[in-house]
Amino acid sequence: MGSEPRRVRLDLAYDGTDFAGWQVQPEARTVQGLLEEKLTRVQGADAVRVRGAARTDAGVHSRGQVADAEVRTRLNDGDLEQALSSMLPQEVRVLGVRTVATEFHSRYRALSKTYRYLLDRTPQGNPFLARYALHHPRGMDEGRLLQALQSLPGRRDWSGFAGAACDVEDRVRHLMEASYVELGTGLGVFTFEADGFLNHMVRNLVGTLLEVARGRFAPERIHEILDSRDRRLAGPTAPARGLILDRVTYDSDEAGAPLAEEGPVGWTGLVT
Amino acid sequence: MGSEPRRVRLDLAYDGTDFAGWQVQPEARTVQGLLEEKLTRVQGADAVRVRGAARTDAGVHSRGQVADAEVRTRLNDGDLEQALSSMLPQEVRVLGVRTVATEFHSRYRALSKTYRYLLDRTPQGNPFLARYALHHPRGMDEGRLLQALQSLPGRRDWSGFAGAACDVEDRVRHLMEASYVELGTGLGVFTFEADGFLNHMVRNLVGTLLEVARGRFAPERIHEILDSRDRRLAGPTAPARGLILDRVTYDSDEAGAPLAEEGPVGWTGLVT
Repeated sequence: MGSEPRRVRLDLAYDGTDFAGWQVQPEARTVQGLLEEKLTRVQGADAVRVRGAARTDAGVHSRGQVADAEVRTRLNDGDLEQALSSMLPQEVRVLGVRTVATEFHSRYRALSKTYRYLLDRTPQGNPFLARYALHHPRGMDEGRLLQALQSLPGRRDWSGFAGAACDVEDRVRHLMEASYVELGTGLGVFTFEADGFLNHMVRNLVGTLLEVARGRFAPERIHEILDSRDRRLAGPTAPARGLILDRVTYDSDEAGAPLAEEGPVGWTGLVT
Repeated sequence: MGSEPRRVRLDLAYDGTDFAGWQVQPEARTVQGLLEEKLTRVQGADAVRVRGAARTDAGVHSRGQVADAEVRTRLNDGDLEQALSSMLPQEVRVLGVRTVATEFHSRYRALSKTYRYLLDRTPQGNPFLARYALHHPRGMDEGRLLQALQSLPGRRDWSGFAGAACDVEDRVRHLMEASYVELGTGLGVFTFEADGFLNHMVRNLVGTLLEVARGRFAPERIHEILDSRDRRLAGPTAPARGLILDRVTYDSDEAGAPLAEEGPVGWTGLVT
């Protein structure tokens, strides 16, 4: 001990399948809880508190979560990364540890977050994507889907797409990107970037967009849901397993230099 | 019932993580056992026996296993595929069902089998590849590896690379291809094609090749192992999780026409 406290930024990838989500909960296995336990053990005294940019739900994955913590340890960033990595299971990987400005806050200072939602479009279902994509072989009308997607970006009140557990007052968020592409490999990828997301917002958007694509909702339904702020008009919540937190961006120097060129770990190399 | 018996070919993909391998064993969950159970239920009477081209070990995956079975059912091939698919868990997928010549035998008539072995070459380990690749960030000398790989193909006695459980007398097999490539996504892929493989042969080859690549064995060691037929000279058996049965080939008409252009399900789209 005796080391000065410093704030470190942690970049994280995880397979969320066997976690009750990011956030610490009593009696549950969570990513935040696991990180706090291991960092506390590395520090050797006093509990370490970890803050995350996004509170991903149970079953949701990450290849670009950013967290931060105040630590007191003589280990430099590289050695701390090594020590932490060696204590964590293979499903949670530390992509980098960097000392950042004391004022850095992974959640409050985030400029934007990007989520991806993966669809397995193969007829039979790819067994190797069962944990990471929603099997959705059904035909999709790309024209209708595109129309709905194009109507989404903007600064709006997203209450109509918020989950019941959403407990924030201000539900205005700026959605910068909403897109869908199909890769040659049978994978369909939704991408959503915003300055913030409400609880279940991406999964409710995807569930609704799939109803549009199959012809059950008109593309205009999106704006009925937004205008009415009535969640009951939206489609079902898409399953957690297809959702992945892709990236969190910051602009100030306090967030530390960007990670080495290789960037975050590939979503099995498919989505870059 | 009352239907005439016919022989069907089944093309299969599976995540082998939670199976005790292909082959039926008492009290164990096996792919063959699961297929026999479901096909018997579809047929409605008399136990169906399923034969597979390859007896993959516990934890080994497939995206191109071929099996065959004699069935009595009024369902045509497409409906049988649907019925079987709906009864199987997501980890076992039926890529196709086709009626084939009565003489067809998925194992005896196979001309060649191709296996892939995946290495996760990212420094931290990709959590989404934890079930499907061996994490191997260590530096590899590609020149030495290439030299060893190039010395492998040929018709030889492979006893030196056979597992202890190998119970066949004739251990001569013709290896047509042995290669290794690194994809830009941090994935390293070994490919082996032969007219047959001995128990643990691919995993013992990979374990030995990794020792060559890290400099612990000279490339010439491969031929010492082959010539001596002494398994103790080879490297460790590489873990099952990196191994996938990629393809089984046949040449006669009795095996049925090739599957539709899309071919076998992608190894998360990476290896084609």
